[in-house]
Amino acid sequence: MSEQRSEQSTEAVPAPANVVAVLGRGLVDADAPIVRADDAGLTRGDGCFEGLHVRDGVVTKLDAHLARMARSAAALGLEFDTAAWRELVATAVTAWPESGEGALKLVLTRGAADGRPTGFAFLTVVAPAAIRQRGEGVRVISLQRGVTSAAFTDAPWLLGGVKTLSYAINMAAGREAERRGADDVLFVSADGYALETPTGSLVWAAGGTLHTTPTGATGILAGTTQRLLFDNADATGWRTANTLAHLDELHAADALWIVSSVRGPVEVIELDGVARSRSPHLDGEIKRFCDF
Amino acid sequence: MSEQRSEQSTEAVPAPANVVAVLGRGLVDADAPIVRADDAGLTRGDGCFEGLHVRDGVVTKLDAHLARMARSAAALGLEFDTAAWRELVATAVTAWPESGEGALKLVLTRGAADGRPTGFAFLTVVAPAAIRQRGEGVRVISLQRGVTSAAFTDAPWLLGGVKTLSYAINMAAGREAERRGADDVLFVSADGYALETPTGSLVWAAGGTLHTTPTGATGILAGTTQRLLFDNADATGWRTANTLAHLDELHAADALWIVSSVRGPVEVIELDGVARSRSPHLDGEIKRFCDF
Repeated sequence: MSEQRSEQSTEAVPAPANVVAVLGRGLVDADAPIVRADDAGLTRGDGCFEGLHVRDGVVTKLDAHLARMARSAAALGLEFDTAAWRELVATAVTAWPESGEGALKLVLTRGAADGRPTGFAFLTVVAPAAIRQRGEGVRVISLQRGVTSAAFTDAPWLLGGVKTLSYAINMAAGREAERRGADDVLFVSADGYALETPTGSLVWAAGGTLHTTPTGATGILAGTTQRLLFDNADATGWRTANTLAHLDELHAADALWIVSSVRGPVEVIELDGVARSRSPHLDGEIKRFCDF
Repeated sequence: MSEQRSEQSTEAVPAPANVVAVLGRGLVDADAPIVRADDAGLTRGDGCFEGLHVRDGVVTKLDAHLARMARSAAALGLEFDTAAWRELVATAVTAWPESGEGALKLVLTRGAADGRPTGFAFLTVVAPAAIRQRGEGVRVISLQRGVTSAAFTDAPWLLGGVKTLSYAINMAAGREAERRGADDVLFVSADGYALETPTGSLVWAAGGTLHTTPTGATGILAGTTQRLLFDNADATGWRTANTLAHLDELHAADALWIVSSVRGPVEVIELDGVARSRSPHLDGEIKRFCDF
């Protein structure tokens, strides 16, 4: 499907069907409420999630996402039954009536005080804007994240690397970008290092090496798409590195991307108002490494 | 009701009744789900809330809470109809069948992508542990929050002072305290200043002055109970001040409290393993200033 047709289709046809499947219950009406007023996932953002890409009925990197969600759940002290989640994913994907690219969200909440955790899968079409940005690239602004680049060392309560439901700042940063006429945000640490974006990993090419921000002390999420990219790049002879970089190093890089599971890799075509020339050859290679 | 009876009652009688009222719908079954799988309040912690205290059918500091929630909603770009929320609160409180102290939570989410925000009120009894701590005090550990004390200056996307639903770190810090045998947490900035607790404001008495942490650049929440306390203290001749303090200044203070709406003011009886002698006279005065 071309990008243009994909966009037009959202104008011309009824809203695509969504699918919701709940752990322990199976498929439910996608428009029906599923979470109680006292579920801590709702009232405290206390839970974790994953966002996965579905193409032609196949979920990409399913094992990596389930492994990361299991780690998130463990960090939150929540149980995670991988086999049950795998079955839930299959239920949702099998029931989905759409044929385009799908965005699958898996959510696990702590539940109500007197209840059990709530787990569910939500499957919808990939937003046309995401597919368009994959082709056109994105204009990015850097925003201060307020945390130091080593804040998460020996501080498990800060939930570094845990994909929690508490994304209010990530969403607010996205709205700030929109207000400034940009498409996305690069978070920068209090000590001036590039971290990650609200919903993706930063990758850049410089001097024949592919770089990304180190996880761990920085608290950033270990990206499943970034991992796939580096594994495939390593196999073809690229050098790869985890690097703490200041913004001037990014401005000097050969090319930058934001990589994430649903939108895929998108090239950064402008950083803080400075236009970047595109790198079609590199961009194509990065997309292949990410299976896009 | 004595603390002991309050605790016993949770053992001896059926679970107390909760009340849930939804904006635009009124009272609903408290056990029924009210939020959809794609509500951003659930999937992104994208929304805001307030926690209020109810005594003998009266909501305390209602205007202050509604005003703060209106500010939170505005910071998130969400509409907030104060009159409608006031009516929702009245609906919930009137329907509540319990006679003890109540904890009322007001929640506003961004809603689903194609829908409207979800607003609801949830009213339940105050946890016996909260009432017990009001009398016995709390043992507190300090934990690094990772942010610098001026991080929120000119950074509205960090949602400083906004009471969002994204409380996963606050909840994780509470679990860390429990693991270490403590009752509560004092967050400390990356540059070593006392900030706030996961669900309350810090107040301390030193040299005839009552202190609290400044809002604004620190990103901490403006506490409605701290405000009431300082207003009443000011009126009786106390000096009050907004002060950035290191932990050693807190150890040297005459007395420390954590103040919040539902639990009320609780005296800190141990900080980072160092026991503090209690200050019954001061503690009584602080409790009166807070209307507890």
